[in-house]
Amino acid sequence: APVRGVAGLAAAAWRWLLSLAAAARDRAVGFGRMAWKIGADDPRKLAHGFKMALALTLCSVFYYVQPLYAFTGHNAMWAVLTVVVVFEYTVGGCLYKGLNRAMATLTGGALALGVQWVASKSGKEFEPFILSGSLFVFASAATYSRFMPTMKARFDYGVTIFILTYTLVAVGGYRADEVAFMAQHRLTTIAIGATICFAVCALIFPVWAGQQLHDQVARNMDKLAAAVEGCVEDFFFSEAGAVLSERSLGYRAVLNAKASEDSLANLARWEPAHGAFRFRHPYPLYQKIGNAMRCCAYCVDALAAAAAGSGPQSHAKKHLAGACAALSKHCAAALREASGSVATMTRSGRLALVVGDMNAAAEELRDELTCLAALLEDDDVDVDSPDAADLPEPPPPLIEVLPLFTAASLLLEICARAEGVVAA
Amino acid sequence: APVRGVAGLAAAAWRWLLSLAAAARDRAVGFGRMAWKIGADDPRKLAHGFKMALALTLCSVFYYVQPLYAFTGHNAMWAVLTVVVVFEYTVGGCLYKGLNRAMATLTGGALALGVQWVASKSGKEFEPFILSGSLFVFASAATYSRFMPTMKARFDYGVTIFILTYTLVAVGGYRADEVAFMAQHRLTTIAIGATICFAVCALIFPVWAGQQLHDQVARNMDKLAAAVEGCVEDFFFSEAGAVLSERSLGYRAVLNAKASEDSLANLARWEPAHGAFRFRHPYPLYQKIGNAMRCCAYCVDALAAAAAGSGPQSHAKKHLAGACAALSKHCAAALREASGSVATMTRSGRLALVVGDMNAAAEELRDELTCLAALLEDDDVDVDSPDAADLPEPPPPLIEVLPLFTAASLLLEICARAEGVVAA
Repeated sequence: APVRGVAGLAAAAWRWLLSLAAAARDRAVGFGRMAWKIGADDPRKLAHGFKMALALTLCSVFYYVQPLYAFTGHNAMWAVLTVVVVFEYTVGGCLYKGLNRAMATLTGGALALGVQWVASKSGKEFEPFILSGSLFVFASAATYSRFMPTMKARFDYGVTIFILTYTLVAVGGYRADEVAFMAQHRLTTIAIGATICFAVCALIFPVWAGQQLHDQVARNMDKLAAAVEGCVEDFFFSEAGAVLSERSLGYRAVLNAKASEDSLANLARWEPAHGAFRFRHPYPLYQKIGNAMRCCAYCVDALAAAAAGSGPQSHAKKHLAGACAALSKHCAAALREASGSVATMTRSGRLALVVGDMNAAAEELRDELTCLAALLEDDDVDVDSPDAADLPEPPPPLIEVLPLFTAASLLLEICARAEGVVAA
Repeated sequence: APVRGVAGLAAAAWRWLLSLAAAARDRAVGFGRMAWKIGADDPRKLAHGFKMALALTLCSVFYYVQPLYAFTGHNAMWAVLTVVVVFEYTVGGCLYKGLNRAMATLTGGALALGVQWVASKSGKEFEPFILSGSLFVFASAATYSRFMPTMKARFDYGVTIFILTYTLVAVGGYRADEVAFMAQHRLTTIAIGATICFAVCALIFPVWAGQQLHDQVARNMDKLAAAVEGCVEDFFFSEAGAVLSERSLGYRAVLNAKASEDSLANLARWEPAHGAFRFRHPYPLYQKIGNAMRCCAYCVDALAAAAAGSGPQSHAKKHLAGACAALSKHCAAALREASGSVATMTRSGRLALVVGDMNAAAEELRDELTCLAALLEDDDVDVDSPDAADLPEPPPPLIEVLPLFTAASLLLEICARAEGVVAA
């Protein structure tokens, strides 16, 4: 019996080990599949990994090759540090960090050297107190300034580096003798690191934040157009209780795009002219368009909720289906036209035409509404009981469409205004 | 005449200088006022600036005091670097960065030492190639892994530090002889810096990300409740064309809170138990509640749009005013009750009662609707011409309120579920 007990225990342990290994394997497989999917969706992300590695390897050459090492010495560390910290996915991100770092290092270093000179004139006893005091003042002021929205958006990273440089130079200089010499050496290596960064980032498969932003806004506008059409179709032509189609839910991408749009617009600001984007390309307009699209998407959300809970086919619903479908078609067409004109950065002459069509369709829907109201009154006499419960039902579609239409036309207005500036 | 010309020029230059100085002064005053306002709104932000400065000054003591400097030597730089980079506004942010840094430094350093040992066994010629090759592989893999959502949310900073440490140790070790000794010294100073950070961050006026998140969610829920009430009031009881009141627009705060909620929930995960928050406090639930609130806010947005464009007082509008106002009151009460029970982290027994009231009010509104429909038919006979244009008008309020009500009840359901877990 004890032998059997031990064998059973061993078997249990073995099974446990096997299940553990299987779980680990499943996890690894899931991880690998996710990694593969990300790379397959956007090969530029894979390229980004290799670019980062390339930049670092280039830096490491400074250690291995004797004449280069003789020039940089142990300071080559700063080049590596710069590459790791500055290298970003988009060119704009890389430039933002690089320029911030350069400016902050220079101002922080210069300020620290100045304060140190003053401190050294005032005698050895007071020096630590003056240095610490100035450090306290500058560090708290700089940290506090990060809470201001404009500073946060443009110079957040710079402030960190400013504090870092100031502290290292002002405090570290207390012990080192040739601060200026050391600072000059470090600046050289940082410049080398930053140059490698920019070169690799901008020359090998560059990813421009401006281009990303542009594509994203145009794509989201198309999704919104599809969602408007899809929701109305789902509402009128699918059976009750059917789930919303994939494309009706595309508007959700618009709702969640705010954070990424804002950060891309912030980074794009730092990019030099590239392709169709000139130096002072009006990136904030994209944010405006994005906000207008979100306003519109809120209404689409309300419409989608109505579509998801839409009742069975009723007399009144059929009556309005034609006009609503036409309006949604025209609205989607206008959105697509606007998205096309954003994508090609031209002012489309057809846009005004399409918007006119949409307004005409809306007019028609309003007429249908008035007509329906009159109809219901007549109708009610002969089919009173089955339609009585139905009566409060029909209005939702049209009423839901109306604010949607308002938002869409608002969006189109803003788009039209935006193009005036975007168009060359 | 030339004298007058020169005098005129000088006067123009003087005026120009004056206007420049005035502009600079205005800018500085504006900047100062903004700085003052931020500090007055939230004194903890001001305290944060001083805390950062204090932590840095404590670090600088290592340079000034001889026995301490003898212990750390030039490596005190790493303590400063750690403080600057790790110190964050919330305790969670500080711990997130600190723990990430510690883990990444240890794993990166250990891995690098291992690879270096292998490389040193394979002869002096191959060493640079093995080291560079491993650097290339690890750096690209690590950079690529940052694109995965879970890695991005939890270990983004750690990956950066991992690459940095690996590079410095693997490559820098090629030239230095006592890598292990150096690594140990650096780790000690980094640990000193991190300890100073945590101590200052968590002991002096700590700002907990969990508490922030908790307050923000409860506050936004109150704002949402006020907005629901405000919009309905604006719709029914203000004159046509009047601007929406301040409190009706409170829902916008809810719409824009997604990014901050997500980051706070991410940081709160790292915080130890504090106050009413235990170690595994269900922070993701706050995100769920936030999302439900946003769903609700979309509907409020549609309602607000309707309120902003509401027509003149009409017969039908007055008819429904009472029921709508009652529903909005009950809905707001339910939201407030839910916010209260989130704020106190208890399951409120009254919540079910209030939700019941709300549902009753919604039932009543539906009855009123049916009643109105019948009424309109009778009504239409005697006041035909003035009410004809009015007919498609009245539905908006109630129809708008219905999805709002749906969303609100959805929200309440989720709240009720959330409390089951949140409540002790």
